[in-house]
Amino acid sequence: MEIIGEKINTTIKSVRRAVEERDGAFIQELARKQATAGAHYLDVNSGMALHPEEEAADFDWLVPVVQKAVDLPLCIDSSRRQPLEAALKLHKGRAMINSVNGDQPTMEMIFPLVKEYRCKIIALTSSKEKGIPSSSGERIKIAEEIVKESQIYRIPLEDIYFDPLVLPISTADNNAVLFLETLREIKQTFKAVKTISGLSNISFGLPKRRLINRIFLSLALAAGMDAAILDPTDNKIMAMAQATETLLGKDAFCGQYLNAFKEGRLET
Amino acid sequence: MEIIGEKINTTIKSVRRAVEERDGAFIQELARKQATAGAHYLDVNSGMALHPEEEAADFDWLVPVVQKAVDLPLCIDSSRRQPLEAALKLHKGRAMINSVNGDQPTMEMIFPLVKEYRCKIIALTSSKEKGIPSSSGERIKIAEEIVKESQIYRIPLEDIYFDPLVLPISTADNNAVLFLETLREIKQTFKAVKTISGLSNISFGLPKRRLINRIFLSLALAAGMDAAILDPTDNKIMAMAQATETLLGKDAFCGQYLNAFKEGRLET
Repeated sequence: MEIIGEKINTTIKSVRRAVEERDGAFIQELARKQATAGAHYLDVNSGMALHPEEEAADFDWLVPVVQKAVDLPLCIDSSRRQPLEAALKLHKGRAMINSVNGDQPTMEMIFPLVKEYRCKIIALTSSKEKGIPSSSGERIKIAEEIVKESQIYRIPLEDIYFDPLVLPISTADNNAVLFLETLREIKQTFKAVKTISGLSNISFGLPKRRLINRIFLSLALAAGMDAAILDPTDNKIMAMAQATETLLGKDAFCGQYLNAFKEGRLET
Repeated sequence: MEIIGEKINTTIKSVRRAVEERDGAFIQELARKQATAGAHYLDVNSGMALHPEEEAADFDWLVPVVQKAVDLPLCIDSSRRQPLEAALKLHKGRAMINSVNGDQPTMEMIFPLVKEYRCKIIALTSSKEKGIPSSSGERIKIAEEIVKESQIYRIPLEDIYFDPLVLPISTADNNAVLFLETLREIKQTFKAVKTISGLSNISFGLPKRRLINRIFLSLALAAGMDAAILDPTDNKIMAMAQATETLLGKDAFCGQYLNAFKEGRLET
């Protein structure tokens, strides 16, 4: 599983303050902690910025600050052209973009950047017109449109990370099942593409949210999910992810599991 | 999910002593604790008894002692005729027998009892001749033989609980995957039958076994498992089981989950 660390996000108050005050030490500490905990990408989000110019200026500062601290690619979390370009110009290595969806104008704005900068791209199975469809069939249709458009730009399918989109189980009993079905269908339909999800939507409105989030991650991995956007400094979720991968036969001789145990990383 | 409480088992030292000394209060306390924690059946095992007469005498004492304490059916855990009959004669309600396998003499001994006492029956996909086959196909073949033989006695398929048998992941990386595949195939092949498993074999030889056991339960439930033999007084595993069922859409309006939270049963 590829792990995208979610913590450098200005919807978190302390991060917002650090970005506003250009507190590089704070941001770099967040970056290092997530890297040490096992992140493969760090999501960088400055979505609280109202104007594209402001968001672009934040990325101008954030991208080099983070990449100075850790040797990891970033997941540039924005849907506006100017900030995305600002970030990608400064980014070392192959970035990921978070995200495109099925809207034609969005695809026409994002895919040229994906092509030019050889990015990986998170693709949501939703669109302005259709919202988040309530059936996996309709979500697959949007995925088909995204794949079709991506091929105009010859984006390699393995660089597309589809997010089947999960809604809270507190609003409909079958929301997790629908997510898992859609994920499996995406993998079956498009073979080479990857799949990804965040974990916290599923538990919205319920108590003991982390319990739900962790099991949701296990079930999604068992259904074939390739990557997750999560807090890698949450030891319990990382222990569950490791144990799940071991159970799924992706850990030769249980070597990673035993290693995680030796390093005291299997918190339960 | 149906839960078979595993704690009344003479391989546990304190239980063995209680059975030897006919310490009814001790056994009844174990029974009550498991019932309160949510068990639907209580497994009763006196397998440390060397002779069938001794095991039968243990059941003569155990079955009424347990059923006086709790209003639950028991899972009579023996593969010998005399103790099984002793237990079934005294048992109130419909017992479960643990277990039959693909051996012809065993089937010819067990199925008449299953029929006579209208029992449910745990069926292992193994035999003396073939051991525990290393492919799901061969395990399904044994299951087919068991189903075929059971129909001579007109045992309802929904009373057969197949255990696809899990071996430790410490001995082969794909042992959990093989189990999950076999479970799914059994459900697809025989439709009405149920599936069941114990949880502790999977983690044999590894540290932090409970972490592995719990995730194994979640993955098995997601694959369609109907019942599990476990320790219902392990709050964490029960919390995970509840959260998993909620995620799998089997908990209308998350009612059971919210109830478990209110009652302080969602330990993480």
